[in-house]
Amino acid sequence: MKATAVSTRKMKTMSAGELEAIEQEALRDYEEIKSRGMSLNMSRGIPCVEQLDLALGVLEALHARSEFANSNGDDCRNYGVWNGLLEMREIFSELLGVPADQIILGNNSSLQMMFDTISQGFTHGCGGHTPWCRQGEVKFLCPSPGYDRHFAVTEYFGIKMLPVPMLPTGPDMDMIEELCKDPSVKGCWCVPKYSNPTGVTYSDETVRRFARLHPAAPDFRIMWDNAYCVHDLTDEPAELLNIYDECVKEGTEDQVIIFASTSKISFPGAGVAALASSAKTIASLKGRTTVQTIGSDKLNQLRHVLFLHDADGVKSLMKGHRQILAPKFRIVLDALERELGGLGIARWSNPKGGYFVCLDVLEGCAKRVVGLCREAGVTLTDAGATYPYGNDPHDSNIRIAPSFPPQEELRDAMELLCVAIKLAAAEKLLAGRG
Amino acid sequence: MKATAVSTRKMKTMSAGELEAIEQEALRDYEEIKSRGMSLNMSRGIPCVEQLDLALGVLEALHARSEFANSNGDDCRNYGVWNGLLEMREIFSELLGVPADQIILGNNSSLQMMFDTISQGFTHGCGGHTPWCRQGEVKFLCPSPGYDRHFAVTEYFGIKMLPVPMLPTGPDMDMIEELCKDPSVKGCWCVPKYSNPTGVTYSDETVRRFARLHPAAPDFRIMWDNAYCVHDLTDEPAELLNIYDECVKEGTEDQVIIFASTSKISFPGAGVAALASSAKTIASLKGRTTVQTIGSDKLNQLRHVLFLHDADGVKSLMKGHRQILAPKFRIVLDALERELGGLGIARWSNPKGGYFVCLDVLEGCAKRVVGLCREAGVTLTDAGATYPYGNDPHDSNIRIAPSFPPQEELRDAMELLCVAIKLAAAEKLLAGRG
Repeated sequence: MKATAVSTRKMKTMSAGELEAIEQEALRDYEEIKSRGMSLNMSRGIPCVEQLDLALGVLEALHARSEFANSNGDDCRNYGVWNGLLEMREIFSELLGVPADQIILGNNSSLQMMFDTISQGFTHGCGGHTPWCRQGEVKFLCPSPGYDRHFAVTEYFGIKMLPVPMLPTGPDMDMIEELCKDPSVKGCWCVPKYSNPTGVTYSDETVRRFARLHPAAPDFRIMWDNAYCVHDLTDEPAELLNIYDECVKEGTEDQVIIFASTSKISFPGAGVAALASSAKTIASLKGRTTVQTIGSDKLNQLRHVLFLHDADGVKSLMKGHRQILAPKFRIVLDALERELGGLGIARWSNPKGGYFVCLDVLEGCAKRVVGLCREAGVTLTDAGATYPYGNDPHDSNIRIAPSFPPQEELRDAMELLCVAIKLAAAEKLLAGRG
Repeated sequence: MKATAVSTRKMKTMSAGELEAIEQEALRDYEEIKSRGMSLNMSRGIPCVEQLDLALGVLEALHARSEFANSNGDDCRNYGVWNGLLEMREIFSELLGVPADQIILGNNSSLQMMFDTISQGFTHGCGGHTPWCRQGEVKFLCPSPGYDRHFAVTEYFGIKMLPVPMLPTGPDMDMIEELCKDPSVKGCWCVPKYSNPTGVTYSDETVRRFARLHPAAPDFRIMWDNAYCVHDLTDEPAELLNIYDECVKEGTEDQVIIFASTSKISFPGAGVAALASSAKTIASLKGRTTVQTIGSDKLNQLRHVLFLHDADGVKSLMKGHRQILAPKFRIVLDALERELGGLGIARWSNPKGGYFVCLDVLEGCAKRVVGLCREAGVTLTDAGATYPYGNDPHDSNIRIAPSFPPQEELRDAMELLCVAIKLAAAEKLLAGRG
């Protein structure tokens, strides 16, 4: 495929003839790429094989008999220890800045712990208040674009989702404070660091405003999904203020529930998930957790403790992830800049961490772009998926997940994506001239 | 302590003087045992260290890189495969007699899968019917004595529990068929093989009557907890009819949900749990499960596949468990026979498998016996725990869990238990003479 010949003038300012020339060229390029018969799924933020290999030591960690007893003398193979191994809770304690005895370990999925938290609110209520299922319509705030699986959980329980725009500082806190005056608003989803998909890390002021939030609903909960707490990609990692400390200052610590996992530290399918909150919230969760299970998988926790040792061990491991991921993000950003820079048909994030590049194409073009890519063999996250009910009001947001494909395939995929964006933009602008 | 001097005459036929002599002797023996300062928790059916060691191979199974890919080519370390590894589902398929594609693997806890099933009925309903939480009072049938954790789950959701007597053939099916005419009765707990705690295996006729059940409630579910499906203790293992096959014959297969796990095959804290049901029920569960998690721990499933190989591997492993457990059951049964045989103050089961000996002492004596043992350092399952709401109407049932203590400690504990039973019986009978 020859180098693209378009100028860097904004496409909106071009004549119909110029746009048609771009459309024709993009169409030719698209057909050429399509003929390569690519087959690549980039729909999710999935670590690649090289990343998984970084944590092979987890599997080698458990051998000697003496290692089955943890510091309390419990045999990690047996039943018991409802909140999980202390040693693993201590690692999360360091990472999240919450005391280890206010942490509950789950199995391999923090999503499952979030689902369960929402389920508890629905059937049993939060903080001793009426269960949400007995309160008529209840609502949740959904900073958008956001994480589709959060939205899927809320939708599953029939909770009405209210989108809140994401700003460079985090969710629009003016709007959140306003919406919280409605007592039927029961919570807010947050990915506070390297947010999925925008890459935004909440500013100190945003975190403080969450801590100072006094919603009309006494059973309001901030679902603080700190999924990317140690997932830096640059030498200038974002610093996230500790929401728990801020909440303690404000006396609102029962209101926040923090989630994290080692899914993107060790293994996505076999990591350790954690939930952290106030002592009061943990005490109330104990009543539920001990009915639900006789304990999470302590052997897997022990494996992780033996391999990671402590928060420093985690951070050192994350440097390996960065070495693998940063070049892939570079490929994505370079392609976007090279192919689309100056055309005025796309904007994108330059994240300092996390798993995504957030792309906004011309209004009304995202579905078309994702469709064109799919037709040519590259599956992106569905257009709209980053909004509640899959409804992107501008049909412009596309989530790019660079982690999984090998670099060569990623380059090809980006070539395809950029051509698709140009094609869709030309079509759109020409139709507008119609 | 000298050998007991009581005759084997039924204590109820004894004179007050004779009873007083027994009471005095039992009291002396009790004080002597108490002075030993025992400390033993026998409250739960927990495998002992020697049993856990049988499955050490699970931990050694995973090394070579090539083993991370399962037969579908998925990397077991990564996200995905919502229903779990096919190879592990095939092992459960052999054990449970349900097709592998109608099995969903969970993490380490079948209890958690049961909790989740009840939770689903409560919030979303079963088979497309109105959620239980919108139906007013709903009820569950609880064959009793039964498993306290089942009852705790039902109680947690505010579901009214109706006890149903256990007969030697399983639950009283006449009563179950009658109670099922009430459309607010939504399900029944079952431990069909080596039932907890009675040791009863449901007769073929009982299984068939469950399969033929046509409850008034269309959203009725049989919670078939086959926890002890391969847990034989003798050369004459009980044979349980395959409920799934029977339900298919009757067209009622959507009505039964089968649970099992390797908790008492490999590791209680790090085994693999499974749920099996009809294709229709599994399809409806897929919608829930894929919102809840991106998949269970496939590495742990792979470990189990590599160690167990197949159902024959499981059965061969279970022979090792039997070798360790059978002598402990012998100790319990011998002590009961030797110390209490013929006195008419206790009856007990002689189970062919499972984890418990089921003991019935004189009416009104179970709490006293358990209290006496606790005071002397041996914690038994709480009296009443085997009944809904912890309420044993006769205060007579005690669950003995012989698996965990070393043989010597078990002998001492049984000595204590028998003395406590005699003491409580003498007290009771003397009070009756009052």
